[in-house]
Amino acid sequence: MKINFASDNYAGVAPEMLRAIENANSGTVPAYGSDPYTQSMQDKFKAVFGETARAYPVFNGTGANVVALGSVLRPYETVVCAEKAHIQVDECGAPEHILRVKLELISTKDQKITPEQIREKLVRRGDIHYAQARVVSITNSTEYGTVYTAAEIRAIADVCHENGLYLHCDGSRISNAAASLNTSFRAITTDAGVDFLSFGATKNGALAVEAVVFLNPTLGLDFEFHRKQNLQLSSKMRFSSAQLDCFLDESYWRKHASHANRMAERLEQGLKQVRGFELTQKRQANAIFGTLPQAVIERLQQKFVFYVWNELTNEVRLMTSFQTTESDVEAFLSALKT
Amino acid sequence: MKINFASDNYAGVAPEMLRAIENANSGTVPAYGSDPYTQSMQDKFKAVFGETARAYPVFNGTGANVVALGSVLRPYETVVCAEKAHIQVDECGAPEHILRVKLELISTKDQKITPEQIREKLVRRGDIHYAQARVVSITNSTEYGTVYTAAEIRAIADVCHENGLYLHCDGSRISNAAASLNTSFRAITTDAGVDFLSFGATKNGALAVEAVVFLNPTLGLDFEFHRKQNLQLSSKMRFSSAQLDCFLDESYWRKHASHANRMAERLEQGLKQVRGFELTQKRQANAIFGTLPQAVIERLQQKFVFYVWNELTNEVRLMTSFQTTESDVEAFLSALKT
Amino acid sequence: MKINFASDNYAGVAPEMLRAIENANSGTVPAYGSDPYTQSMQDKFKAVFGETARAYPVFNGTGANVVALGSVLRPYETVVCAEKAHIQVDECGAPEHILRVKLELISTKDQKITPEQIREKLVRRGDIHYAQARVVSITNSTEYGTVYTAAEIRAIADVCHENGLYLHCDGSRISNAAASLNTSFRAITTDAGVDFLSFGATKNGALAVEAVVFLNPTLGLDFEFHRKQNLQLSSKMRFSSAQLDCFLDESYWRKHASHANRMAERLEQGLKQVRGFELTQKRQANAIFGTLPQAVIERLQQKFVFYVWNELTNEVRLMTSFQTTESDVEAFLSALKT
Amino acid sequence: MKINFASDNYAGVAPEMLRAIENANSGTVPAYGSDPYTQSMQDKFKAVFGETARAYPVFNGTGANVVALGSVLRPYETVVCAEKAHIQVDECGAPEHILRVKLELISTKDQKITPEQIREKLVRRGDIHYAQARVVSITNSTEYGTVYTAAEIRAIADVCHENGLYLHCDGSRISNAAASLNTSFRAITTDAGVDFLSFGATKNGALAVEAVVFLNPTLGLDFEFHRKQNLQLSSKMRFSSAQLDCFLDESYWRKHASHANRMAERLEQGLKQVRGFELTQKRQANAIFGTLPQAVIERLQQKFVFYVWNELTNEVRLMTSFQTTESDVEAFLSALKT
Repeated sequence: MKINFASDNYAGVAPEMLRAIENANSGTVPAYGSDPYTQSMQDKFKAVFGETARAYPVFNGTGANVVALGSVLRPYETVVCAEKAHIQVDECGAPEHILRVKLELISTKDQKITPEQIREKLVRRGDIHYAQARVVSITNSTEYGTVYTAAEIRAIADVCHENGLYLHCDGSRISNAAASLNTSFRAITTDAGVDFLSFGATKNGALAVEAVVFLNPTLGLDFEFHRKQNLQLSSKMRFSSAQLDCFLDESYWRKHASHANRMAERLEQGLKQVRGFELTQKRQANAIFGTLPQAVIERLQQKFVFYVWNELTNEVRLMTSFQTTESDVEAFLSALKT
Repeated sequence: MKINFASDNYAGVAPEMLRAIENANSGTVPAYGSDPYTQSMQDKFKAVFGETARAYPVFNGTGANVVALGSVLRPYETVVCAEKAHIQVDECGAPEHILRVKLELISTKDQKITPEQIREKLVRRGDIHYAQARVVSITNSTEYGTVYTAAEIRAIADVCHENGLYLHCDGSRISNAAASLNTSFRAITTDAGVDFLSFGATKNGALAVEAVVFLNPTLGLDFEFHRKQNLQLSSKMRFSSAQLDCFLDESYWRKHASHANRMAERLEQGLKQVRGFELTQKRQANAIFGTLPQAVIERLQQKFVFYVWNELTNEVRLMTSFQTTESDVEAFLSALKT
Repeated sequence: MKINFASDNYAGVAPEMLRAIENANSGTVPAYGSDPYTQSMQDKFKAVFGETARAYPVFNGTGANVVALGSVLRPYETVVCAEKAHIQVDECGAPEHILRVKLELISTKDQKITPEQIREKLVRRGDIHYAQARVVSITNSTEYGTVYTAAEIRAIADVCHENGLYLHCDGSRISNAAASLNTSFRAITTDAGVDFLSFGATKNGALAVEAVVFLNPTLGLDFEFHRKQNLQLSSKMRFSSAQLDCFLDESYWRKHASHANRMAERLEQGLKQVRGFELTQKRQANAIFGTLPQAVIERLQQKFVFYVWNELTNEVRLMTSFQTTESDVEAFLSALKT
Repeated sequence: MKINFASDNYAGVAPEMLRAIENANSGTVPAYGSDPYTQSMQDKFKAVFGETARAYPVFNGTGANVVALGSVLRPYETVVCAEKAHIQVDECGAPEHILRVKLELISTKDQKITPEQIREKLVRRGDIHYAQARVVSITNSTEYGTVYTAAEIRAIADVCHENGLYLHCDGSRISNAAASLNTSFRAITTDAGVDFLSFGATKNGALAVEAVVFLNPTLGLDFEFHRKQNLQLSSKMRFSSAQLDCFLDESYWRKHASHANRMAERLEQGLKQVRGFELTQKRQANAIFGTLPQAVIERLQQKFVFYVWNELTNEVRLMTSFQTTESDVEAFLSALKT
């Protein structure tokens, strides 16, 4: 089997997660969330994100993003996001299809958007011919492996709130962002002005669970209807909740995310020594974007699996996970050198 | 903790399922279904349902029903179903919301619909003011615990196919139906003319997986787009596939479903001895519907959890699962007698 | 050409309407409603329906119903209506398709629903698995030509408001209802507790215009976005507004609606003399429902155009319009007698 | 009243149109299109666009675009268009809301897109995570008043058809385009490879009617269901059809469109003499885009109504219509000179 640098979702389930699932498997408990595992999970979200946090498990990241956004938007409102945001380029049009709203795209080199770029989108306010921006969605860490700092998020939140918009964070890899910044989840969400969050667990070792987390207490009050109606309600929710509960311990999420980031960092350091390699994005979390000669790419692909991001420029993405080992990295680097 | 007769989804995960998940957790494999576990699962569906079967794991039963139906229907077409079908009364309007189509309801005492009732719905064909029936959806076993025989399904399929309609089966509890009839899955689906199927696993011991199965080779050819767009694509699909693979063994599904049915049968036999109890539906699978005096209901609810189905008539639903034990049944019956 | 008893929309445009259109055709005025004709129309709606009334022209009745309902409902809410309501059986699934909500149907012989029937629909409130009733929609005059009185509407409005529901009236033929009751529009809408209204003009002599009218001041505040987004905004709105303005004069609407009703009444009186004719609905507005021998139907259809409503029972619908003449009626009755 | 250079939909209805409406107002005819006026209109579309043409009247341009596109697309497919296309910036998100599909935007200075730009959008074909381009939509004349030639359209059609895409033309101002090119409708649609068309009449003197026209005989076969369900079916369709029938005569459409274009040309010639005026787009049809000093704009707005297109650059849009007179143009030019 080839060594994986393709994606963190090629990895399996972390052993702590399997144990959490097993532990939740005793006896019968009510379905759909009226169980003690879900209660415990919700308490832990409040402890980690602050008292206003309300968390709702869903099945996957697309589900988290789409149902979260849909519960906040009116039909003629739009979501402002980066032009390569996951909701734009990797969800098969689910936002338009399920939410029935337009995404407004911001051009950006590193997938991070700025307060100024948001302001430029705030045109034709109140014009009935023009769908109205209502939510800004950022991804942290971004689809290009870059990371927003708490201060950068706060600046975006401020321009949102001054203009009646809400700030959403696609936190599919929020563990990697928090680990990279050596900070808490709370610092880059609740305390930075994020109104609601797609909280990712699967990419950092869970089986199949994410959570929609409302931090703004006025939002999502009828979210349970939206979740059910949009196909994201798990009957045996105790298993989703038990995974999230396990995940929220620093000893879980930070350990695994830091490991993945560290493997990426080590890979980056090795790559920088290689002639012909050029970083195309800052390496800040668990992904490396850079260019390699095409012949090298083809040779590497015989033993390793990874994405060619841009075939025209020979840009590749190398992604690490909680399962990536030092020997995986060494194998890649030595294959590269020969 | 109260003893569960509320629902089969109050039960946990069968031990075989946990082992299947653990076994799938070795090393890295491609995400989204390009993995050997998914290949094996698909082969097994062909072996069980026939060579035309194509199976697609999804997260839950509402997801299976809605995305399956949506992939077949044009926007001005409708689904004919029983008036208490799960898609009508227990999915929070998801079919209308996601599919954007009308359900056409058939009145029925036992949740089974007849060929004649379907024919009566075939009116105003071609009238552009009237949404056009295109799919008939039956549930087997039904929401009232009754079971369609292979011959009954064939008769419905024939009226569908004579009129250009497709037959869908909501098989959320298809194991209980097949166990009840002492027949194979294939006999009550492929061989009886079912065109496509929501195949249920969660209610019979899986963690969180169902499958959409196309038996008619002309349907669902672009289903993977529909599944992704409708929020039902699992990234770590190997775990969904491994559960389904395990499930399809007769030693798994028939064992557990037969057990649940047998526990219901034993409960039924006991209840029939109780003065004041009246069966309101035939007990054919793992659910019992009947009336009890209100005072008795209230007393029982102190030790047992179950649904009062109709508060006006004091009708209750008692449902068994793979986890129900003989002592659960005995405890209920003896509580009832005192 | 056959004489028309098929529908009031087989009629043309009343001469007053054509003049109103011509009068509005002088010079250039702003598009999309910022014109003096629209201002005048809105003022007249306030004069007729009360100070809270806000009126928005749309193109047709389906547009009025669907966009009005859609502006009020959240995605998991439903509309309660009679089982043969126009929104259910004559809009090709537009409510489900555009609104994406479920209709909840009430069985009724004469298409009028009662407060008791509404109460029976108010089940499973707050249950996230069940779409929640939020609007009751009545049609006045109904699809079967019957008429709700102000008192009947008030009783329905009361049960709605006691339970947090809104009352919508499909007033596609509200002129015929008001003329039949010899009362004002206001008495059977604003003063009877109707929250919002699809106000019909086309069936009573306009070219192609209806209006959505909000009477409850808390509803429809962002309706202009909904109207634009749902394809119902006319650029040259002055012509829509001029028609509505003309329509709202009693000398217009009551004259034409009373005429149509009177022609139906005369037809009814003649029919009652005919052996073999049985009324199947009370004749209260401009439609007659009744049974005739099949041979008679076939003979009449050679000279007259009308709908066979129920082929099994030989029930026909005879509908009059502002254009129906006494000689049309006489011709029908004498053809019938021979 | 200020003199109008704001939009061609500030104009009223051409006298020929009013006569056509009046002429259609004799007696009763079947509703919904089964009338002789609609038959005649359809025959004329075939005569003008070729034998494959099938035309369906709708109410407005947004309706034409959205319902036409919706009848062709599957839910996971997209429309490629210019970034300032009417469907993107002036329809309040109706395409996303009603069609539930994504628009893929092409950057362009003059609102004309090129075959090369389309090819660049044809990425990730078959990737289930990525919505798939299926239709290219061009506007002719464009939102910036520029015009595609028949050869330019053919080149776009070729790249579409080579790649399994369809070509749609938003012909809201197709009369102005054909008049500008001194060619026929057919030359820039059917003969240039356009598959389906939103045919505009309102902006060139009709009251409120557009048509969806399918030129590719494989498309739109169930369009009548789509039109009804999407709120665009007029009951008294004879009046829509009569307007379109009148419009299709060269003596109508070319006369009025050429007049509007000529007024714009004259205005352009005058403006070019004015110091401080800079054209920002080629003037090819009935719209002029250019910059003027802000003080001049403000002074002109006291007597004339027109749009400031870009407040940052003081770009204005001046649009002429069939009603614009030479004295309107002279008045503007002399006001400008003083």
